[in-house]
Amino acid sequence: MSKKISSSRRKFLAGSATVAGLAAATSVVPISVVNANHLEPGSKGLPDFIKWKKRSALIIHSGKTMESHRGAVGSSVITPIRHIYIRNNMPSMTDAQIGDRSKWQVKIEGVKNPKTFTLAQLKRMGQTTIATVLQCSGNGRGFFPHKPRGSQWRTGAAACVMWTGCPITTVVEACGGIASGTKYITATGVDHVATGLDPKKATVERSLPKKAHKDAILAWEMNGVALPNAHGGPLRFIPPGYFGINNVKHLGKLAFTAEESSVKYMKSSYRISPIGKKGSQYPSCWEMPVKSYITSPLKSAKSGDVVISGVAFGGTKKVGKIKVSTDGGKTWKKAKFVGPNLGKYAWRQFVYKTNLKSGTYNIASKASAGGESQPKLRIENRRGYGHNGWFDHSLNIKIV
Amino acid sequence: MSKKISSSRRKFLAGSATVAGLAAATSVVPISVVNANHLEPGSKGLPDFIKWKKRSALIIHSGKTMESHRGAVGSSVITPIRHIYIRNNMPSMTDAQIGDRSKWQVKIEGVKNPKTFTLAQLKRMGQTTIATVLQCSGNGRGFFPHKPRGSQWRTGAAACVMWTGCPITTVVEACGGIASGTKYITATGVDHVATGLDPKKATVERSLPKKAHKDAILAWEMNGVALPNAHGGPLRFIPPGYFGINNVKHLGKLAFTAEESSVKYMKSSYRISPIGKKGSQYPSCWEMPVKSYITSPLKSAKSGDVVISGVAFGGTKKVGKIKVSTDGGKTWKKAKFVGPNLGKYAWRQFVYKTNLKSGTYNIASKASAGGESQPKLRIENRRGYGHNGWFDHSLNIKIV
Repeated sequence: MSKKISSSRRKFLAGSATVAGLAAATSVVPISVVNANHLEPGSKGLPDFIKWKKRSALIIHSGKTMESHRGAVGSSVITPIRHIYIRNNMPSMTDAQIGDRSKWQVKIEGVKNPKTFTLAQLKRMGQTTIATVLQCSGNGRGFFPHKPRGSQWRTGAAACVMWTGCPITTVVEACGGIASGTKYITATGVDHVATGLDPKKATVERSLPKKAHKDAILAWEMNGVALPNAHGGPLRFIPPGYFGINNVKHLGKLAFTAEESSVKYMKSSYRISPIGKKGSQYPSCWEMPVKSYITSPLKSAKSGDVVISGVAFGGTKKVGKIKVSTDGGKTWKKAKFVGPNLGKYAWRQFVYKTNLKSGTYNIASKASAGGESQPKLRIENRRGYGHNGWFDHSLNIKIV
Repeated sequence: MSKKISSSRRKFLAGSATVAGLAAATSVVPISVVNANHLEPGSKGLPDFIKWKKRSALIIHSGKTMESHRGAVGSSVITPIRHIYIRNNMPSMTDAQIGDRSKWQVKIEGVKNPKTFTLAQLKRMGQTTIATVLQCSGNGRGFFPHKPRGSQWRTGAAACVMWTGCPITTVVEACGGIASGTKYITATGVDHVATGLDPKKATVERSLPKKAHKDAILAWEMNGVALPNAHGGPLRFIPPGYFGINNVKHLGKLAFTAEESSVKYMKSSYRISPIGKKGSQYPSCWEMPVKSYITSPLKSAKSGDVVISGVAFGGTKKVGKIKVSTDGGKTWKKAKFVGPNLGKYAWRQFVYKTNLKSGTYNIASKASAGGESQPKLRIENRRGYGHNGWFDHSLNIKIV
């Protein structure tokens, strides 16, 4: 969570052009004009830009927001790409807007020798792969009783993804190191340029504490395929352990900065404020807290042996213990992590085998990481961010 | 590799009905009658049973054999399911032939208390996930100059897959333990029953050394989705580290046996014999030897910095070192493993960054595991099995 906002926000970009400059040559049209891919919740189809997704794995909230069904993440650690949720603040860039993917450019600023690299150049600099949990800040918003504005996600605005790209540390090295006096790493999407939107309203630009760059990558591949446009292709910033919004899509600039960005998506949106209050003085959606939830069974199971399974993750910290309750949290039993450990930023599958007689049970899971345990309740906040309370994520199942 | 065949093959199944018995009530028709999904090599389409695969990722050899393009495995460890090769000895079972997947049955024999479990029951017994390299015994056959009969695979009859299912050790425990006097674990596919094929010719039944059961699972999920019919759904035997053929599809029986199976697919097929010779006295395609190959670049790259990447695996042994040569094997440099380590049965991605001037280069990779290193040359054999020589897998690339 970010500290109280510095008063000198205006000089935030260390050695960089302003965000507005990126779109200076383009015309500005209202967001509503290009937001044409609206779909009614409950729609039977999928919008064209994600026609390749599996409709039955997704719950449609709008034309730019689709949640994975709770069981659709599977039990094989990595979420199948056709099942992964979509949450785009802006319309996804089209192939025509992107053009030749190998020529896609990203500016690196706030370094000793600022440079611009094409995707082709990045691919020649270095390559690694990381598995991370990608989770929308508002995942779990649907559980908040005050009905915050925004998609009513329950569990499915989260996935475990393999990303391949160039380490930021390699990029920084090629630019002579980080400039002095910088405190943040600020990533800028450039989709607003191609779509001609007002950069003040439409620029997705996010600042994170500088340390977030250490394990971060510039990704061009996701689960073994070229990064789809719908997920921010051809190039996306992946700072592992930080909420989805910080994984900036259609990346056009990465800058080490002295101040946080002043665009709407940093300054006012994604702030965790008390209900009825807002402002940049409240913490930003940065590191994800420890979380877990059961993915099977979801409704019922046969009496006798029952295998309860789910996923658990620790944000930027390695997930430690996982416990399961079948009595609404009165008692907890240790569950077992199973399957490959893909590193601290991935989620782990857990399994708890028990024996249940006929009846109704409240089943819940509770994970801990870095000394912190999931709380029972959500932390009430205006926009319904960061929900990791175990109680709302519990399930009432029928054993028959 | 299996030892010389025992002379008393007739009494091979410890406490089990014969394979022929499984199909006793079904009519027997020639294989050619049901093998109707033939496709010409170079076909633009895909047969119906794998219409969901990505055509451009695959090289079609026949209606039941499709290879992944060398670069189509991606750089994110797990191979995308739509890119994974198909090698079916028998026509894949249809949904109609399978019926209710939860009622699919598997007999467990050669145990103290033989039992039959449904898929629903297995799911209630236990669950784990393993990542393994799935590789056809004949992968690399296309490099053999004597043109062995069979699909002319080069590198693409291999994939790294996540499997989810019930551990065999859990199944064995539920059956009171392994029967005494058993030496093998014998897995039987039952697709020939539904398709009415001659069980003597069409039963895919494979025996492995008993120790192969320890990390093996009965899998119902693959890369996060219910195991597709084309890959042996609803239930497949996954003995990690053993060649593809041993990963028996449409599994109907698993038996601990005193002898190896006597069906064609065990007795005469998949034997590594000298050119011009055949017979069950030769080793069977069991444990996979250490292997690696480069997946990028495949043809050319720009002069200057070049990132060479690929995959390396050790069969049943953890892959140790990986080296890359850019001069046809005269000199070797250590490459770096990158990305998550999914366990010893998975492959690892490797990366070697170098600087190359314009010209033509022969690039090769050489892995070692458990003290064994890839040989330079293939081991010549009649059917072109088990090729792990680095020389044939090297690439001539043009640096421009």
